[in-house]
Amino acid sequence: MERQRALELVRQQMHEKRYIHTLGVVEAAIALAKRYGADEKKAELAAIFHDYAKCRPIAEMEEIIKREGMAAELLEHNKELWHAPVGAYLAETEAGIRDPEVLQAILYHTSGHAGMSLLDKIIYVADYIEPGRSFPGVEEVRELAEQSLNQALLQALKNTIRFLLERNQTVYPDTFHAYNAVLKEEQQNG
Amino acid sequence: MERQRALELVRQQMHEKRYIHTLGVVEAAIALAKRYGADEKKAELAAIFHDYAKCRPIAEMEEIIKREGMAAELLEHNKELWHAPVGAYLAETEAGIRDPEVLQAILYHTSGHAGMSLLDKIIYVADYIEPGRSFPGVEEVRELAEQSLNQALLQALKNTIRFLLERNQTVYPDTFHAYNAVLKEEQQNG
Repeated sequence: MERQRALELVRQQMHEKRYIHTLGVVEAAIALAKRYGADEKKAELAAIFHDYAKCRPIAEMEEIIKREGMAAELLEHNKELWHAPVGAYLAETEAGIRDPEVLQAILYHTSGHAGMSLLDKIIYVADYIEPGRSFPGVEEVRELAEQSLNQALLQALKNTIRFLLERNQTVYPDTFHAYNAVLKEEQQNG
Repeated sequence: MERQRALELVRQQMHEKRYIHTLGVVEAAIALAKRYGADEKKAELAAIFHDYAKCRPIAEMEEIIKREGMAAELLEHNKELWHAPVGAYLAETEAGIRDPEVLQAILYHTSGHAGMSLLDKIIYVADYIEPGRSFPGVEEVRELAEQSLNQALLQALKNTIRFLLERNQTVYPDTFHAYNAVLKEEQQNG
């Protein structure tokens, strides 16, 4: 799908602030794809569609999770996680995105998971460091992302887990599995 | 098994410092059992035997984990975890402890797990707060343990997870499942 057509499709799905965030993730994802040798068109497409479902009503997301037989444990954890699998589903069924690598990167962009592909990592990190983000710790992850995608991802996952612990929120198992898996990759690399 | 006989059995298994720690856990576990209405004799017995395997050679623990078909993922995580399941196994097969509640508390005293019993929680927290412990954060958990066993356990699990993140160590899945489960119990209670 061409960039302009894709942007038009997602712009209709979200308010202005969310669309500006999306443009930031697109910029960050293309830069990371160039730096780490991923397919730039796939990175661009996954970034454009990553928050496709973010502004859908909670009840609609819940209905889709149940109807489509997505992981039932999603419903026991933070609702902030829901738009990612629902977004992958709607990007396919409504917007016609067919590339399984792109859909997988959308699916796991909020939780991470144990077996993250290069594209999954790029979208996760791009979402974390895009130019509009300004929360504590983001600058450190931006700097790491210029040296090592895994180190940036690891730091982002740690910050996310610490944030949830501080706020007495459950940690979705895929997020812990992502942390353990990336840590092991890094230890094996070096 | 009588206290004196049990203490003699474990004393042979460990050096002096570990034995003094064990006596501290016994004291803390009996106090928690009184406070929270658990069986004091079971708490005492689980505390006495909780570190039964702690001073065994790593190679012997690894051999037992493999031979007895214990969770294979144990071998991919911190060796500090191994003495708990191996200890439960040896407390049964060498020392003749037969009570499944006591053996379960020994099994999960280092990792925690998703469905912790009252006795499991008491041994986990007693091991964390016994009088000989002096690491950062222990005083807060000691104070919480006077008000709420779950709050003390939650804080101990959070401290443990944060400690592992800071040191770039993997977090054993049972530990974050324990955190999520206790958090949900507390949210449902309160």
